[in-house]
Amino acid sequence: MENYTLLTDLYQLTMIGGYVAKNKTHQTAVFDMFFRSVPLNGGFCVMAGLEQLVEYIRNIHFGQPEIDYLHSLGIFKDEYLDYLKTFRFSGDLYAVPEGTPVFPHTPLVVVKAPIPEAQMIETAMLNIINFQTLIATKACRVYLASEMGNVIEFGARRAHGPNGALSASRASVIGGCSGTSNVLAGQRYGIKAIGTHAHSWIMSFEDEYQSFKAYSEVYPDATLLLVDTYNTLESGVPNAIKVGLELEAKGHRFLGVRLDSGDLAYLAVETSERLDDAGLTGAKIVISNNLDEIVIKQVLNDIRTMSREKGIDGERIIKRLIYGVGTHLVTSHGASSLGGVYKLAAADLEGDLRAKIKISDNVSKTTNPGFKKLLRFYRDGDMDLDLMTLVDEKFKDFHKRRAYHPQFPYKNISLAEMDRYEELHRQIFRNGELVYKLPSLEEIQERLRSQLASMHITHKRITNPHTYKVSLSRNLSKLKERLIREQGFNNGIENGNGHA
Amino acid sequence: MENYTLLTDLYQLTMIGGYVAKNKTHQTAVFDMFFRSVPLNGGFCVMAGLEQLVEYIRNIHFGQPEIDYLHSLGIFKDEYLDYLKTFRFSGDLYAVPEGTPVFPHTPLVVVKAPIPEAQMIETAMLNIINFQTLIATKACRVYLASEMGNVIEFGARRAHGPNGALSASRASVIGGCSGTSNVLAGQRYGIKAIGTHAHSWIMSFEDEYQSFKAYSEVYPDATLLLVDTYNTLESGVPNAIKVGLELEAKGHRFLGVRLDSGDLAYLAVETSERLDDAGLTGAKIVISNNLDEIVIKQVLNDIRTMSREKGIDGERIIKRLIYGVGTHLVTSHGASSLGGVYKLAAADLEGDLRAKIKISDNVSKTTNPGFKKLLRFYRDGDMDLDLMTLVDEKFKDFHKRRAYHPQFPYKNISLAEMDRYEELHRQIFRNGELVYKLPSLEEIQERLRSQLASMHITHKRITNPHTYKVSLSRNLSKLKERLIREQGFNNGIENGNGHA
Repeated sequence: MENYTLLTDLYQLTMIGGYVAKNKTHQTAVFDMFFRSVPLNGGFCVMAGLEQLVEYIRNIHFGQPEIDYLHSLGIFKDEYLDYLKTFRFSGDLYAVPEGTPVFPHTPLVVVKAPIPEAQMIETAMLNIINFQTLIATKACRVYLASEMGNVIEFGARRAHGPNGALSASRASVIGGCSGTSNVLAGQRYGIKAIGTHAHSWIMSFEDEYQSFKAYSEVYPDATLLLVDTYNTLESGVPNAIKVGLELEAKGHRFLGVRLDSGDLAYLAVETSERLDDAGLTGAKIVISNNLDEIVIKQVLNDIRTMSREKGIDGERIIKRLIYGVGTHLVTSHGASSLGGVYKLAAADLEGDLRAKIKISDNVSKTTNPGFKKLLRFYRDGDMDLDLMTLVDEKFKDFHKRRAYHPQFPYKNISLAEMDRYEELHRQIFRNGELVYKLPSLEEIQERLRSQLASMHITHKRITNPHTYKVSLSRNLSKLKERLIREQGFNNGIENGNGHA
Repeated sequence: MENYTLLTDLYQLTMIGGYVAKNKTHQTAVFDMFFRSVPLNGGFCVMAGLEQLVEYIRNIHFGQPEIDYLHSLGIFKDEYLDYLKTFRFSGDLYAVPEGTPVFPHTPLVVVKAPIPEAQMIETAMLNIINFQTLIATKACRVYLASEMGNVIEFGARRAHGPNGALSASRASVIGGCSGTSNVLAGQRYGIKAIGTHAHSWIMSFEDEYQSFKAYSEVYPDATLLLVDTYNTLESGVPNAIKVGLELEAKGHRFLGVRLDSGDLAYLAVETSERLDDAGLTGAKIVISNNLDEIVIKQVLNDIRTMSREKGIDGERIIKRLIYGVGTHLVTSHGASSLGGVYKLAAADLEGDLRAKIKISDNVSKTTNPGFKKLLRFYRDGDMDLDLMTLVDEKFKDFHKRRAYHPQFPYKNISLAEMDRYEELHRQIFRNGELVYKLPSLEEIQERLRSQLASMHITHKRITNPHTYKVSLSRNLSKLKERLIREQGFNNGIENGNGHA
């Protein structure tokens, strides 16, 4: 296994060197990782990447090549390089489990550790969680648009590098995909690998029928034929039906056809009718070609409209669809990054842990201070509100409590009507030891499914979702107000930049 | 080193299985890799990723874990799995060298190999070249916007996974960046690693001055201070100047300050004046915070305007700028994928290599057939036109020849005025052996610099560039016309989908 310890911004290492030189290596710090807005104006993100973060943290070690390289930069003292030789993560880490819908400003990961260690893991954490959460979120949008249909990730050729493709496959499955074209992801993560043939297969034969027939002879129980090389309805579908009937006559099951160009809604309706007319009622129709959540919604809508006009059953056509989604999924087309950040929430300045705040001109960028936990409240069975509290607050009597708006505390609501709450953070590391059993991908998918089942439809909309409530406990709200008052008024508002 | 052989779409492996079963494994095929449009309506892309493609191809091998995994899929015969055990790439591969500006529809990579081998490398090739070329192209846009200034890649925390970050750092340097914050990229590729400290360093001290002073004591010769934690002009810059003067009094060189929020143009002008007034005339100003090529152009424009109004020298301010560009660079914000494709150009059907064409309703999607090479013609010292020719055409007498528009052959121009031409393809593999000396990153950067120096300013514009001419030789144009006539009219136009 390659050593990824140095997957960090240099400033982390210069800062850690500073903490070593200034004898601050035992100073405890608490950092929160969170994002400020959901990509594509969606309602929520889907947490992903924790397993790879755990792997990174467990494997941190500065071997001789790393030490030699850092030495070669000419800015680090030997004393510091010696410190790095025995460096490991010895802190506590809490995180929301993968597959959980998460909302802006809530801590997805909380780290409590000696400040150099908390700093050391920042870059890799942001890299891994930002990317996988971005793709799981996009995949979930696609999955919801397909009405929880059968979505396959097809994006390896456009993903951001070999590992970008691998991570994207994993995150896509977390977000709702049921398979991938990427064989390495199949091997590595046990995801179902899917695929048949390309246009080049057909073009390497004298004619389309011969190429289909040859394919069906090699894979009689896995024949799914790409029908758009020459002319979909005039040539591809009739040739596929011919081969499909030959297969079924021999007792095999014909899987279906794939449409990769043209007007997918129109072609799906026409193809479905022809398959049925030929008696191939079990055949599936894979649609692909620059699909994303918007295109899929439109295709489903158009299939329903066309079917209504023709007097046929549109739902039957939709049920046989499989969606191959590539480029737009694995690169999160339209929002190619998630802006997750990692901010100091508390620091031990002179022996006791003090809450810290970073105030910004932009009030929504002012951080939520303190060592916190995160509660999800359910009402009438649906998730209704996420509440950040200080870590030692008890919420057994939540019916008597209120939840406060993070910026405008005069906006607060009673928790009296809530059914129950769930603590969202799991402890992952305790004193540097992994204390969490990483769930399987199936368990993570099940987590998302059950959470989606208890999410109101208005929060699941792809466009213009209803905003989910994220709030602070009374104690946390008071703490935030106090810190803003003390720091904001004493030192002048931070970041008072721009025109003086 | 991990085995990335299975970084491929499953359909490649099912097709190869088909070729094995149908005794077509020795059939030669020629494939072209090309893209159809430049992201963000730019004028050109910058070729990148060849080194990692070479690495992938050289390391292809199906070990026991790969064979076991494929066996577990239950669709492959033992005979085929045996074939894979000794599989290697034994073909020829030609490519445009990294750092070369490239244009739509021209083959960046040409593969001539037994069809299973040509097919096997498709997915990884597209993955690697698409991504690195995308980022090198974005980096070059940023570099040109900065007027070939000092641009540092800061994107690790938002890149698409750990290797996405690594490849993005490499590609950014190919496109014009001079450094990276990513230490692993520094170690792996010898890129200059850059970085100082974050807001958390400052917040872990009692006050800003103490934090700056502490930093300067640890890194007296590498002190660059982040000045926007509290108030840039009221607090950050004065504290940095104080520490800078203390450093210089002790004989060290103060590197400068970093602005990471607020109005960067305004703050750069004000900060520059204050540094000069204090005598710190050598101090640099790093600007960062969601920079991209458009923001950088605007900042430079505004610095010039403000300086003119103040009667100061704007060029002096611009000369001291360093640009930290992160998220928008490493994710190619606004165009998160390059749509490179890999298309069959010739196939040996019955013993002789026949040119193949894929005709599309969309004429610009109809492929350019045949085994081709690529010539770049220069006029008055500037690159003027790229010409695709058949591989055996001689062009010594180019002054007498004409170049033909790829879709409209009646549009053709004389090559009489050209100075010279350069063959853009290098042979990379011959019979599976690497026959190309991979250049260093410095050599690749030099390649881009010298190519940019011979590119007319109208082709280098970030928005609305003049379209560069890409054309066909007379023979190739005639071949294309003939194949369209034969195939298009005999078989009906391919992809005649949509409404019948």
